[in-house]
Amino acid sequence: MDIVKELSKIVNPGRISTAAAVISQHNHDASYHPEADPDVVVFPENTEEVSAIVAFASEHGVPVTPFGKGSSLEGHAIPYEGGISLDLGLMNDLKAVGDRDGYVVVGAGLTQFQLNDALKKHGLFFSVDPGAEATLGGMAGTNASGSYTVKYGTMRDNILDMEVVLPNGEIIHTGSKAVKSSSGLHLSGIFAGSEGTLGIITELTLRVYPIPEATVAARAVFHDFEEAVTAVVTLRTAGLDLARIEFVDADSVTHVNHFAKTAYIEQPTIFFELNGEVEHLQHQLKRMEELLKPFEVVEFLAETDQAAQERLWDARHNLAYYYIQGAPTKQMLVTDVCLPISELSAAILHARRAVDESGLEAGIVGHVGDGNFHIIAMADFADEKEVAAAKLLHEAVVDYALAHDGTCTGEHGVGVGKKRYQSREHGTAYDLMRTIKHAIDPHGIMNPGKLID
Amino acid sequence: MDIVKELSKIVNPGRISTAAAVISQHNHDASYHPEADPDVVVFPENTEEVSAIVAFASEHGVPVTPFGKGSSLEGHAIPYEGGISLDLGLMNDLKAVGDRDGYVVVGAGLTQFQLNDALKKHGLFFSVDPGAEATLGGMAGTNASGSYTVKYGTMRDNILDMEVVLPNGEIIHTGSKAVKSSSGLHLSGIFAGSEGTLGIITELTLRVYPIPEATVAARAVFHDFEEAVTAVVTLRTAGLDLARIEFVDADSVTHVNHFAKTAYIEQPTIFFELNGEVEHLQHQLKRMEELLKPFEVVEFLAETDQAAQERLWDARHNLAYYYIQGAPTKQMLVTDVCLPISELSAAILHARRAVDESGLEAGIVGHVGDGNFHIIAMADFADEKEVAAAKLLHEAVVDYALAHDGTCTGEHGVGVGKKRYQSREHGTAYDLMRTIKHAIDPHGIMNPGKLID
Repeated sequence: MDIVKELSKIVNPGRISTAAAVISQHNHDASYHPEADPDVVVFPENTEEVSAIVAFASEHGVPVTPFGKGSSLEGHAIPYEGGISLDLGLMNDLKAVGDRDGYVVVGAGLTQFQLNDALKKHGLFFSVDPGAEATLGGMAGTNASGSYTVKYGTMRDNILDMEVVLPNGEIIHTGSKAVKSSSGLHLSGIFAGSEGTLGIITELTLRVYPIPEATVAARAVFHDFEEAVTAVVTLRTAGLDLARIEFVDADSVTHVNHFAKTAYIEQPTIFFELNGEVEHLQHQLKRMEELLKPFEVVEFLAETDQAAQERLWDARHNLAYYYIQGAPTKQMLVTDVCLPISELSAAILHARRAVDESGLEAGIVGHVGDGNFHIIAMADFADEKEVAAAKLLHEAVVDYALAHDGTCTGEHGVGVGKKRYQSREHGTAYDLMRTIKHAIDPHGIMNPGKLID
Repeated sequence: MDIVKELSKIVNPGRISTAAAVISQHNHDASYHPEADPDVVVFPENTEEVSAIVAFASEHGVPVTPFGKGSSLEGHAIPYEGGISLDLGLMNDLKAVGDRDGYVVVGAGLTQFQLNDALKKHGLFFSVDPGAEATLGGMAGTNASGSYTVKYGTMRDNILDMEVVLPNGEIIHTGSKAVKSSSGLHLSGIFAGSEGTLGIITELTLRVYPIPEATVAARAVFHDFEEAVTAVVTLRTAGLDLARIEFVDADSVTHVNHFAKTAYIEQPTIFFELNGEVEHLQHQLKRMEELLKPFEVVEFLAETDQAAQERLWDARHNLAYYYIQGAPTKQMLVTDVCLPISELSAAILHARRAVDESGLEAGIVGHVGDGNFHIIAMADFADEKEVAAAKLLHEAVVDYALAHDGTCTGEHGVGVGKKRYQSREHGTAYDLMRTIKHAIDPHGIMNPGKLID
């Protein structure tokens, strides 16, 4: 069977490609996972085309792997079994803005940056920011989150409805525009985070929020991170309304200073953001300083100036980039465990020891308000010893998280990189996941090899 | 087969009953739906017993209907196909309080009132309050919500993990104690709101929050409810942090005055609650009064005194009770649609007209911040004309909601009462729900006749 010829009956041939350049754009993502070529890349323009493509693929047992911006850190978009790479980039419309209700309707191929640019004039913003330029469909697929999650929730928390094409080509809606519902089984919940293994998300209705009147960024430097984490717990249990709480370890600050030519104190640092009304912020900031008094804070700095705030956040945002820059011959491996916050300082201490033992260049950063932290480790994947060290490090960190009520992935998803931990993490529930996957995708054509075997 | 004899091999015979009094306690709930007797009532003490009971039931095709406090408004706990009524009332332990993390682990039979009583000494509270004394397992089963949902979310939003006994007797966990995760399919989402049709929830890990420093209750009386709803939208889009926003229509206020011997102005009224730090509350209250200035507010009253606040909320809480008291020979039917808030005033206007046309005694109340409102209608279920009028009213209100991006049930669940709207609301997605139900419960023993056919 000539797939290209068959697909040409469904979509304009100009949107079907087997050109080497296009194939190689779709054979990798932002992770260290090995490349794999799709047989063909298709760029549908609307849901009906997606439905026809998937129905065709289903009939002929052709694997379908959805592709957004290729920003995955776990190989989600890599078509390991070949077949169709379904690039949703053309389905990037902002279809509706519900100003009064606080929602938007978007095509799955729209990115979070594009959405936020378009929302500015409405005085609204979308809260989930995984850092990278990712599509909203992809972010729903992995249940992405980010620095604002501590206040505004994960991707799943912000989905009201999705349009999804099922493996048989049927088009469903998983929710409605009502902000809550007790009607039917909650399909939005199960499709968010299903990583393209149950169907293709083509459209999303997402919650958006009024842009806060003002923001304040603050930075607190601590002698050690146990003190830092305890301080965060204190602020949280005092009911302080923090919009972001980001941890950066001493090694990472050293990296920032080197590459950004800054002169931050090279000790564990927490970056905070507060947002809301000006008067409220001043009061909260005052309370924050009071609550931090019992702690040995080496330095505390608050910035209300927008440009100064941005410089402060740049240090955090560019960190992965600095690590990559510092080791141009190596590849980046990022761990992603999440634990109850009461387990966090011991977990980070354990992780730091594991990093030291590994001998790898690595920094630890984290969304500490959520109990989620990352080791950004650089390893030469052509060097067997470094690969083994990276693997051992990853195992050690995941083992620790699973033994302490945590999860192997807080926000990056399973893909191919965390699949080997699924059975250990979920136990008998993993069998149930398999049952659901098999019931919805009996031929196993949807993003095969990811999440569920 | 002698079910009682077989069950006696699993649980102590003292916890198995076919006594008329016990059967009749388990043949109804708080709704107008007809009674139906279980063959036997069993009171398991732990998850292992539930597992053994369900495995036995599965093997012999015996229906299992979970029972909490019987507070359902849609017949969830009524065993229409007989079999086992599984009363989880003995599994009511508060097993753990994670003070630093903000979670509790509870048996499914614990009620929300019991939980909140026990949490007081920890300075914590559980936010989901459907009004009635309901078990937390039952509340998870229907994805219950209530007046605090506008700030703290629904039951589903507050579940970190559940222990569930599957139809085959297997015990799974649907999540973990990490506050976010991208690992595996999101089973907590699909089991919350599954109404006992996929398995029996035996234990829950729930989010809890620090008790706020202070609360203020406020009451604003408006000339008409369109003005009232517009005012709510204005407050919300201004970013005001409201903990409760409850609407009560003029007829309902009249009912309150009559039964509670109060003298409230008999016009559409919004009850608000703000919570947080004292200083912040004062500022918010000032902003609220400013934001309400352009509206024709007949009366605005704020109460910081705890007892006065409780009196204010009593009026709202006792409303259903007053309607029942006012029509002792009749039964209460409560509708439960939820729409985008921009559709709400037209929906309530439509509902008021439908009530007037029905000739039934009825009030309209609502969680307007969520777009969820209820008609509390009293009808004589022995009178065919009144039954027909009640049915017509219900249909009209649901039709309107479904035609305006809404849902047939915002918080009460489907049970038997909303099943006939499921296909209309969910379209092809209802087939997928059936597929999932069949994959998990192939013999259809779990709460048969509810939610999914």
